[in-house]
Amino acid sequence: MIYITRRERFNAAHRLFKSEFTDEQNLEVFGKCSNPNWHGHNYELFVTVKGKIDESTGFLLNLKKLSKVIREKVIAKLDHKNINLEVDFMQGKLASTENLAVGIWKELEKIIQSLGAELHCVKVSESENNYAEYFGE
Amino acid sequence: MIYITRRERFNAAHRLFKSEFTDEQNLEVFGKCSNPNWHGHNYELFVTVKGKIDESTGFLLNLKKLSKVIREKVIAKLDHKNINLEVDFMQGKLASTENLAVGIWKELEKIIQSLGAELHCVKVSESENNYAEYFGE
Amino acid sequence: MIYITRRERFNAAHRLFKSEFTDEQNLEVFGKCSNPNWHGHNYELFVTVKGKIDESTGFLLNLKKLSKVIREKVIAKLDHKNINLEVDFMQGKLASTENLAVGIWKELEKIIQSLGAELHCVKVSESENNYAEYFGE
Amino acid sequence: MIYITRRERFNAAHRLFKSEFTDEQNLEVFGKCSNPNWHGHNYELFVTVKGKIDESTGFLLNLKKLSKVIREKVIAKLDHKNINLEVDFMQGKLASTENLAVGIWKELEKIIQSLGAELHCVKVSESENNYAEYFGE
Amino acid sequence: MIYITRRERFNAAHRLFKSEFTDEQNLEVFGKCSNPNWHGHNYELFVTVKGKIDESTGFLLNLKKLSKVIREKVIAKLDHKNINLEVDFMQGKLASTENLAVGIWKELEKIIQSLGAELHCVKVSESENNYAEYFGE
Amino acid sequence: MIYITRRERFNAAHRLFKSEFTDEQNLEVFGKCSNPNWHGHNYELFVTVKGKIDESTGFLLNLKKLSKVIREKVIAKLDHKNINLEVDFMQGKLASTENLAVGIWKELEKIIQSLGAELHCVKVSESENNYAEYFGE
Repeated sequence: MIYITRRERFNAAHRLFKSEFTDEQNLEVFGKCSNPNWHGHNYELFVTVKGKIDESTGFLLNLKKLSKVIREKVIAKLDHKNINLEVDFMQGKLASTENLAVGIWKELEKIIQSLGAELHCVKVSESENNYAEYFGE
Repeated sequence: MIYITRRERFNAAHRLFKSEFTDEQNLEVFGKCSNPNWHGHNYELFVTVKGKIDESTGFLLNLKKLSKVIREKVIAKLDHKNINLEVDFMQGKLASTENLAVGIWKELEKIIQSLGAELHCVKVSESENNYAEYFGE
Repeated sequence: MIYITRRERFNAAHRLFKSEFTDEQNLEVFGKCSNPNWHGHNYELFVTVKGKIDESTGFLLNLKKLSKVIREKVIAKLDHKNINLEVDFMQGKLASTENLAVGIWKELEKIIQSLGAELHCVKVSESENNYAEYFGE
Repeated sequence: MIYITRRERFNAAHRLFKSEFTDEQNLEVFGKCSNPNWHGHNYELFVTVKGKIDESTGFLLNLKKLSKVIREKVIAKLDHKNINLEVDFMQGKLASTENLAVGIWKELEKIIQSLGAELHCVKVSESENNYAEYFGE
Repeated sequence: MIYITRRERFNAAHRLFKSEFTDEQNLEVFGKCSNPNWHGHNYELFVTVKGKIDESTGFLLNLKKLSKVIREKVIAKLDHKNINLEVDFMQGKLASTENLAVGIWKELEKIIQSLGAELHCVKVSESENNYAEYFGE
Repeated sequence: MIYITRRERFNAAHRLFKSEFTDEQNLEVFGKCSNPNWHGHNYELFVTVKGKIDESTGFLLNLKKLSKVIREKVIAKLDHKNINLEVDFMQGKLASTENLAVGIWKELEKIIQSLGAELHCVKVSESENNYAEYFGE
């Protein structure tokens, strides 16, 4: 069993808030992350997949192919977007790093299986100090 | 003459667009940076000041003091904000990295003189691949 | 189960030595890390906690709150300190990265439980080339 | 049980290709990584070992000693070399990051046991975007 | 006058040697960088251009356009190539970081003028410890 | 004229204080950097030299030779040392980053001339947020 990881990046706007709260209540619970006019991040996404090395190529999975899948299924939806307003798999959820990691896992799990590997970890880094990881359960 | 640099960080939303353009025209000129629903970045700000070492302290300027000034005059206005809508010194300007560097220079130039040093460079990094520098002229 | 990580930093002096050894014996066992006049590091601390996402906030745990706890319980004791002489939870122990990771775990384990999460990993990085991780057993 | 990690670096040339393929076939399967005139990387190697802290030193294993072993057994064979042509433990294998991780594991497993620790993970990073990890099974 | 910088990356093989030397003489002068079977690097290229901000866009120069030019004129020639054997503008020169910086300058100087900006600096980083910069004279 | 830069690293303890002050006065002026029991840093040193490319080698100066000189003249005196107590060229000076940059310049200026190049800049980085640069006048 070998593990390989591909990093991709996206820049997005988001806001942490609950629509049933006032701006003041949101500020109390979510701090400045609740700014009604949005803020944003350079997110880093690390996708780790596992499986057996294919002896005919030396690869678990061609990283170019893995990169292409991540870009088509995830980055295209998130990059230069507003996570709260524009990202289909985040609708109805709070736009936290935790929920992003879980949401991205669901977007990728099956397509990676179809490539002959198994999704192991989705890590979403929001800043140099904060990141979330999801292992699928 | 010695040069010292302090890094500070801020997360903000922005959009590159001209209000007199349609969304299509903005997309043509500014690409996905013109997304009407905003996007955002983890900006890094490097402020370099120059001057003589004060022999009684070994400092050109106490970096804690420099950090405090940058946070009060610049970071407080930018962090977790929408650069287009909420930042006073960016009103009426396109929210580009270049204009941010010039705008931050103007916010800092005099206050740093009052601390006994001279502003040398404002560097604003938008991503690991892109940055702008302004030296005041 | 989701995992979130917060990075905090501290600068500290330390020395690796045994008081029952001569300086020469310490030099033989611990190399230049045994310098009697101390040396120091910019340590990086990565605290990973795990648990369930709270659907009402989208968080496992507010990272601002996690940061505050780490700063109060750990960073305040270590930052700009001498690990051998001044840090209560390191008294009587060799000031190695391994022992630091275990010591920090013990400082944090219960307080993180009281916040509704579970401590998963304490990682202490002493330089860009060396780090230690402790998972609690 | 504590885990410690040592990073070492090496610069090497390689090519991904199968000798029974034409250059065109190799290009189709391996992309520009199959360039017949080679290309190369600054590889980063992270070796993680696990075990108990030796109370007489505070170490699982002296990181200087671990570094020396990695340099003698692995880096000396890889640094400023051609992985396909010159590295004994990669002969007959495709020079992929995955195979490098497995090959390095085999070079290190026993020697680390003889130092009183257990090899936990070999991570080989080929670029800031791609890495492979092997845990021995 | 504003300065903007774009980072691009390329992976390449090279060898430092003089064809009129024996392998032993090359080893004496160039050390392990003279390995006859090549070695390689993940190079980082930082291209800094200067000029006036275009008030109608907020840009000195659209960084997407700058990136495109660098990729077409420089990266396409260097990435996954052998610098000694395959890069036209390095023929007849020693494949040092210094010569790379000068060679890339010559490839870019005019095309950047045609975009309305002035090339200020070409920085080529060979490793995290070594880089060369050329300012055109 | 080409510029090349070599990075070297050292770990050291220091304290910012004036012996004629009480601990309280030192705390007021220098903050927690005045801790009487010392603290420390992983310092990064960037030495930039300039000159002409030697056509017979492609180098301004062999970076291995530059590294050797920096290690012998500077790193050997600073690494795993107490800057206040043990570093000859810092005696009688406050152990600030600014004074370190100037002190290192003086140690290196002549020896680099003897190697046929000219010292251009000494940059000392104390943390990821703070650095000082000295250009010799």
